[in-house]
Amino acid sequence: MPAGFFVPMQHLNQTRKNMSDPNPIIDFEKMNGLAPGIVQDARSGEVLMVGFLNPISYAKTLETGYVTFWSRTRQKLWMKGETSGNRLRVVSAATDCDNDTLLFRVIVEGDGLVCHQGTVSCFTKPLQVAAASQQSTQKKEDNRGQ
Amino acid sequence: MPAGFFVPMQHLNQTRKNMSDPNPIIDFEKMNGLAPGIVQDARSGEVLMVGFLNPISYAKTLETGYVTFWSRTRQKLWMKGETSGNRLRVVSAATDCDNDTLLFRVIVEGDGLVCHQGTVSCFTKPLQVAAASQQSTQKKEDNRGQ
Repeated sequence: MPAGFFVPMQHLNQTRKNMSDPNPIIDFEKMNGLAPGIVQDARSGEVLMVGFLNPISYAKTLETGYVTFWSRTRQKLWMKGETSGNRLRVVSAATDCDNDTLLFRVIVEGDGLVCHQGTVSCFTKPLQVAAASQQSTQKKEDNRGQ
Repeated sequence: MPAGFFVPMQHLNQTRKNMSDPNPIIDFEKMNGLAPGIVQDARSGEVLMVGFLNPISYAKTLETGYVTFWSRTRQKLWMKGETSGNRLRVVSAATDCDNDTLLFRVIVEGDGLVCHQGTVSCFTKPLQVAAASQQSTQKKEDNRGQ
């Protein structure tokens, strides 16, 4: 990485133009400059949280190895865990078929409690969903063949 | 709320008004009527895809037990796998601390290939991320105590 690029957007533009950059270009346009970033525990597989990244926070994440979001409410860069110490150290990362979503498999530093409510994961509220009727699904499949 | 949403929106309103409904009210307003829905394989823990739900597709998902997105490009309900047979049967679901994101743990029906590109997961493109400098992180932590 060249020295002197301390302004993230400059860095990003250069990264984009650099033909040797192996990463696909993320489609931030689809969601008005943002892409959802899923954070998954690299060891347990538990989904811990979802945040949003803009091009600057994405470049920062690639550069530092720590997940950095764009805070929509505060309109600023937000390196998750910078204050609490529960940083999200990236073990591996991927984008999807449409290049518009990011997945970060991480090791959570500090006490490992990602959620500001003091839990490992933010997804603590179960939703009641009806049991799928597999029989009626089968019927539909059969009908399709007719 | 626009007029003309006859069946699903009525159902949703009914669900919302029903005091015995144990589910938290999802905050669709935060993202102009949408909430991201993460789909995770209930057995392997693999993150398979992310789509978006609006209130109607969310109600449909709760009601049918199959993940139903709102297609932003086609502007219509999209029961994932309805054509391919690779439906996403919900085993459990949760929302997060802010009630603005959904997580569905699913069994994939059919041939189990969720991505339209013929892979199990949509997240097939690895991203190169710099290794985090834990030493400098430690220093920072030490400094904070001063």
